[in-house]
Amino acid sequence: MKSFLLAFVLLALASSLASAFDPRPLQDFCVAIDEPKSAVFLNGKFCKDPKLAKAGDFYFSVKMPGDTNNPVAARIDFAPYGQNPPHTHPRATEILVLLEGTLLVGFVTSNPNHTLISKVLNKGDVFVFAIGLIHFQFNIGKANALAFAGLSSQNPGVITIADAVFGSNPPINPDFLAKAFQLNVKVVKDLQAKF
Amino acid sequence: MKSFLLAFVLLALASSLASAFDPRPLQDFCVAIDEPKSAVFLNGKFCKDPKLAKAGDFYFSVKMPGDTNNPVAARIDFAPYGQNPPHTHPRATEILVLLEGTLLVGFVTSNPNHTLISKVLNKGDVFVFAIGLIHFQFNIGKANALAFAGLSSQNPGVITIADAVFGSNPPINPDFLAKAFQLNVKVVKDLQAKF
Amino acid sequence: MKSFLLAFVLLALASSLASAFDPRPLQDFCVAIDEPKSAVFLNGKFCKDPKLAKAGDFYFSVKMPGDTNNPVAARIDFAPYGQNPPHTHPRATEILVLLEGTLLVGFVTSNPNHTLISKVLNKGDVFVFAIGLIHFQFNIGKANALAFAGLSSQNPGVITIADAVFGSNPPINPDFLAKAFQLNVKVVKDLQAKF
Amino acid sequence: MKSFLLAFVLLALASSLASAFDPRPLQDFCVAIDEPKSAVFLNGKFCKDPKLAKAGDFYFSVKMPGDTNNPVAARIDFAPYGQNPPHTHPRATEILVLLEGTLLVGFVTSNPNHTLISKVLNKGDVFVFAIGLIHFQFNIGKANALAFAGLSSQNPGVITIADAVFGSNPPINPDFLAKAFQLNVKVVKDLQAKF
Amino acid sequence: MKSFLLAFVLLALASSLASAFDPRPLQDFCVAIDEPKSAVFLNGKFCKDPKLAKAGDFYFSVKMPGDTNNPVAARIDFAPYGQNPPHTHPRATEILVLLEGTLLVGFVTSNPNHTLISKVLNKGDVFVFAIGLIHFQFNIGKANALAFAGLSSQNPGVITIADAVFGSNPPINPDFLAKAFQLNVKVVKDLQAKF
Amino acid sequence: MKSFLLAFVLLALASSLASAFDPRPLQDFCVAIDEPKSAVFLNGKFCKDPKLAKAGDFYFSVKMPGDTNNPVAARIDFAPYGQNPPHTHPRATEILVLLEGTLLVGFVTSNPNHTLISKVLNKGDVFVFAIGLIHFQFNIGKANALAFAGLSSQNPGVITIADAVFGSNPPINPDFLAKAFQLNVKVVKDLQAKF
Repeated sequence: MKSFLLAFVLLALASSLASAFDPRPLQDFCVAIDEPKSAVFLNGKFCKDPKLAKAGDFYFSVKMPGDTNNPVAARIDFAPYGQNPPHTHPRATEILVLLEGTLLVGFVTSNPNHTLISKVLNKGDVFVFAIGLIHFQFNIGKANALAFAGLSSQNPGVITIADAVFGSNPPINPDFLAKAFQLNVKVVKDLQAKF
Repeated sequence: MKSFLLAFVLLALASSLASAFDPRPLQDFCVAIDEPKSAVFLNGKFCKDPKLAKAGDFYFSVKMPGDTNNPVAARIDFAPYGQNPPHTHPRATEILVLLEGTLLVGFVTSNPNHTLISKVLNKGDVFVFAIGLIHFQFNIGKANALAFAGLSSQNPGVITIADAVFGSNPPINPDFLAKAFQLNVKVVKDLQAKF
Repeated sequence: MKSFLLAFVLLALASSLASAFDPRPLQDFCVAIDEPKSAVFLNGKFCKDPKLAKAGDFYFSVKMPGDTNNPVAARIDFAPYGQNPPHTHPRATEILVLLEGTLLVGFVTSNPNHTLISKVLNKGDVFVFAIGLIHFQFNIGKANALAFAGLSSQNPGVITIADAVFGSNPPINPDFLAKAFQLNVKVVKDLQAKF
Repeated sequence: MKSFLLAFVLLALASSLASAFDPRPLQDFCVAIDEPKSAVFLNGKFCKDPKLAKAGDFYFSVKMPGDTNNPVAARIDFAPYGQNPPHTHPRATEILVLLEGTLLVGFVTSNPNHTLISKVLNKGDVFVFAIGLIHFQFNIGKANALAFAGLSSQNPGVITIADAVFGSNPPINPDFLAKAFQLNVKVVKDLQAKF
Repeated sequence: MKSFLLAFVLLALASSLASAFDPRPLQDFCVAIDEPKSAVFLNGKFCKDPKLAKAGDFYFSVKMPGDTNNPVAARIDFAPYGQNPPHTHPRATEILVLLEGTLLVGFVTSNPNHTLISKVLNKGDVFVFAIGLIHFQFNIGKANALAFAGLSSQNPGVITIADAVFGSNPPINPDFLAKAFQLNVKVVKDLQAKF
Repeated sequence: MKSFLLAFVLLALASSLASAFDPRPLQDFCVAIDEPKSAVFLNGKFCKDPKLAKAGDFYFSVKMPGDTNNPVAARIDFAPYGQNPPHTHPRATEILVLLEGTLLVGFVTSNPNHTLISKVLNKGDVFVFAIGLIHFQFNIGKANALAFAGLSSQNPGVITIADAVFGSNPPINPDFLAKAFQLNVKVVKDLQAKF
């Protein structure tokens, strides 16, 4: 379903885009490191010794090869007609800078209006998607598109709507979903088989 | 689509369930009032003169007649097989206390696992739905169900998934949605006509 | 002094009623676990591996047997004329849902007014006590009363006024207390012996 | 009851001791002003035009004559054996600098320990009282004492325990209080008449 | 002194890069508007009626003509060898995306180390400057450079070090500055005349 | 350069002056302790077992011998004409209580005004320096001066302007600095050699 290449590059700039959800900084910066003791889960990450910080810890390049581990900053490649399907970030606002190509982007406001606010972006354009709202990006050009996305939390979270609703594990009761989406139960079961 | 009666009762306890998104209290409490000058939108509400606060400002009853204006506390009535379809609250965690009946409730975790965490609730049971996650309630009994829901923000927001995706105004590009949901374009257009 | 049965049930829903005092969530949820290394005290708790979360971690029932370890959610049983004496929660707002019986509840505002805001609650009523204010509950009926209380912090704290003032360890200077409470020194010493 | 002179001096340094409860600053500083439209209550104060700020807005002197309007900074004068009776600040931590004299100060930790942590302070000593805990100051010397107190919120609030419990308006049910404080009902009614 | 063209473009995306210093959102978004009543200063801005929000409110383009009023997002043009001199943002972290040219960028950590962390950036590179630290950008190429800068607060503030120290109004005591900067008093007075 | 004696005294009152940058308290108080495992850096400190807290943990005296480890509270001694040169605290507001002597203190507001707000303080005077702004203290009397300074964060940070700009390691490009400060390159290189 995702025809775009999502290239998350590891940037240890954990608190660099300080978010309303992140712990407040108590140091000049916190370069996040992965805590080796995997049995223990903290609310947040451990920081590198600040004296060992290097310029590379604050740096990211859209020219770097892809790496899928970084939630804060991302290079997103879109093949022609590729899409980043409807999704939300429960803990972050997103800022998207389009470096190449043409994208149709948009988000839908909450109940009761469900207003779609969308725009066609070209090179050099910047767009902002507010925290928690359903949004998407769609390459409507014949060429590749390349964007930089920054997210305002150390752990923004992603909920891809179609996957979460029709692809949960275990599946949601299909009769319930059929009613909620006004679809035939058979169609819902087919979707649950695909996702 | 919503077979349940959603009875939001006006409770002027704006900051009573202080949330991470609400302004910090600077008074013993802030009993929200609607600011008459409708052309001006503040981030938050004005407060009643604290000296005029009454017990009724801190009180809510599931026996009260419905009122659709209060986002913080709600009585929810479910007809047999009625449902509260998949939705998220972008700015609040929800706590649900079941007073009568039997409900199947659940939520789906974020990418990449999409784990469905669900439970059948009976009278006296309490369940918590974390901020920003897709969740639902479904009356699986033959009798009515009655619940009290508290939300952790003065303005939690509600995004009903099916409405936001297929019922936005203007509609989202149906070719885009067909691909994202792996549905036939005709089915998407039918859904967009219904929602 | 406490004639009511205070049944705190362990609900590992640490961040479920996210409070202004709790660290911001960086995960979908944090199911608190007790860190085994007792010599180290963190500001907050460690979280369970989110992949191991179960529905029971988000669930609480007033039908469950009592458990005294959970500060976030509680079943409170009141014998006839039983009371929850004047106390404050320095780090949480409290929401009380009355499931059975009749309670007189109230709180006092801060200086200089000291207004008592109180109300008689019946089954299905909900009342809110703002953070840091002195409040109480009193069963004024001849039958038992049963309530569910939710608190807006992972560690709300409780300060029972009479215990803290007259039962501290070591005791506060009785001459000082006699003057502050306008009581005879002998009465103060008697109270300090009782608490 | 209060034999000390409490001299609160108006210091328009509203957000200068930024607290966890205060709105975040969006300017270099916010010199609070009183909003003339008394019918409207905001959560926080309006700020003076920053261009009009003067050094006096950031300045306070223990030599200044008393003024009872400022909640953030205070000069406190204690007559011999004068006291600041047990009280809490629901929205602020307090830092006290003793400039002259000798004070016995202390606070009591929350349930279940109720540990009294107290100390005799002399000139040049500084003591900190954590937010929400019951604390007091008592001049145990034969000379006057003079202290400077800073509070960590624009509106810290003060709850004088004896006044709030026995002097509320309307009064709390005396039977209830008698039981809670293990006092004779007649003693409670006498106290309620005095406070 | 500033050879670069600083083109701040009005982007009414006030809370889009939600910062630790900004008030928490209580709406899907707050499109800031300038409140006409200039005599009143709030901590934060008023929001546009959300129903009137348009895509342009979330959009910014580096191709747009310069506008000096927007503190949140900026296009920065650097002439060859142009510079953005040492400065701090007291209320924001900055993220810089280089769209054209070559820049030397850097920041200095706090006492006692004063480590300079710097890097030469090329097209497509991104760098982060942590809140409150002294940082700078310098065009070291022979061509123009073009960057997009995002700041994590609605009102980040800028303190240009040389201007603030030597160009304050009224001037700081030159003897004091001479000692602090180990410069001759005459040199300090010359600087104060220039800035 | 610093002719004053900076006597930071270890006061383990980590969160006592709760700041907007500090983690929210989840206990009555957090008496910070140094975590022995030096390879791991947390955002914040570990707390002492609250049951072991003693009065000394909340106490500080300007009579105590100097100790350079405590960032929250400080005794500052100024020799005649001694100075605390221009500096900022990126994570704290500072409150200064003058106990002896005469100081000229001041701070400069941010761009574009750079207003110097300064005042001569005498014994008993208190002054507040807002977070992130450049400020200084200068003993303009012939006698020693003695002050108590409290800072609103567990780790406020200090950036001494002259040291950070001219004494960074490695040094900032002198041509760049010469232009930014409108100084001769030779003068800049001399300064870089001194700092």
